[in-house]
Amino acid sequence: MKKDKIPAATIIRLSVYQRYLKKLMNSGVKVVSSNQLATEASVNPAQLRKDLSYFGRFGVRGVGYDVASLSSTISAILGLADEWRVVLVGTGPIGQALLRHPQFARQGYRFEAVFDIDPSNVGMKFENGLTVQGMDKLPEVVQENSIQLAVLAVPSDKAQDVADCLVKSGIRGILNFSPTRIKVPRGVSVQYVDFTILLDSLTYNISRNRGQTIDTESEPAKPRWGREHSWPVVQSNIHGQEIGLSS
Amino acid sequence: MKKDKIPAATIIRLSVYQRYLKKLMNSGVKVVSSNQLATEASVNPAQLRKDLSYFGRFGVRGVGYDVASLSSTISAILGLADEWRVVLVGTGPIGQALLRHPQFARQGYRFEAVFDIDPSNVGMKFENGLTVQGMDKLPEVVQENSIQLAVLAVPSDKAQDVADCLVKSGIRGILNFSPTRIKVPRGVSVQYVDFTILLDSLTYNISRNRGQTIDTESEPAKPRWGREHSWPVVQSNIHGQEIGLSS
Repeated sequence: MKKDKIPAATIIRLSVYQRYLKKLMNSGVKVVSSNQLATEASVNPAQLRKDLSYFGRFGVRGVGYDVASLSSTISAILGLADEWRVVLVGTGPIGQALLRHPQFARQGYRFEAVFDIDPSNVGMKFENGLTVQGMDKLPEVVQENSIQLAVLAVPSDKAQDVADCLVKSGIRGILNFSPTRIKVPRGVSVQYVDFTILLDSLTYNISRNRGQTIDTESEPAKPRWGREHSWPVVQSNIHGQEIGLSS
Repeated sequence: MKKDKIPAATIIRLSVYQRYLKKLMNSGVKVVSSNQLATEASVNPAQLRKDLSYFGRFGVRGVGYDVASLSSTISAILGLADEWRVVLVGTGPIGQALLRHPQFARQGYRFEAVFDIDPSNVGMKFENGLTVQGMDKLPEVVQENSIQLAVLAVPSDKAQDVADCLVKSGIRGILNFSPTRIKVPRGVSVQYVDFTILLDSLTYNISRNRGQTIDTESEPAKPRWGREHSWPVVQSNIHGQEIGLSS
């Protein structure tokens, strides 16, 4: 199904549009133009329209988009719920920082349980009321609560074992902060957050542009999107309905 | 220059190859086959060869790649140095966790100075010897040390102001942990780490695959790469030499 292939970058942009639409709703704005929505999301209007076109027809030419209706449609597309429950594995500095990060709750993600591979951390309590549990409790907690999302923040050499355990317990999406690649069965998605790999991309750009002068006084350049400017995309192992880099 | 357009996903994969090559070097391995390197990086061999082909000819058919030589070439392409110095702005839980994360030093990134927009945090000392400085010191520190990389971990509503200050001081690449889009002039690159946007991509996949059974007992599926399976890509504002999503 060729039509079914939505570019991963489009999915990422939908989240960005959605955040702005929520802001508008909170300010009581009813209608937004594609120009306005595109500018806020730092994409060009043509890209915005193309992104939305994958999912049907939206908006009225010359009028704009109904904020509430577009927002609820994007929520439905992304599978956003009032709340997605998430388990966290790993309570090192990154794990703890994530647990305390207000952005998760703000966007509808709630840490339901926390686990650690190190037995000496089991029993540690957090301000939000969660207590660190041992890995032996993970399958039961995930299954009983039908949890499908996990955040993985363990050392690299433990990441694959923990991922295997997560998947066997019923997890279908893993946000992986461990700086290593993990293998998962078809139908399970992994999104990597690998800090130094992201820095490598920046150094690549810096190195290529050495000597170029930057005009910091003028208005910032309007980002050019599309094939030249891209967004983070998800790596998934889902067959038949892949998110891909399509052109 | 059409030829100059390297897919951002390729740049990300180069980092992954490079990590594995380093491991091989440390184990004394001299030659690696493209199959072996591709498997370790979870790409198919054709993708690996295509990625490398952007930068010339490597390897000997039927023999493989010289580990040391390929590693040093990739390092040169990515602009990796023995050490890149980085400034951090923001010493909340995320900023502090990053400062303590061993992966940065391991991959050649060293936090040279730490700043905070909150004056009450100025003077706070970290185990690594760094002391939090006020934003007024940032331009001097960045310029005197010719620092080009920054990690941004401040609240969303402060991110643009801090980014403007960073760019004016000479920063050319920003790893942005603040959950908001920032605008930068041409020639400056931004890489976003937005946790909940990444989770939204996972929920999109999960929602589309609801009801699908996962075979967790069999061997994990070999990831299929290329247009279907994609890697995080950098968003840059560099004109003329963009990293893009090319096919």
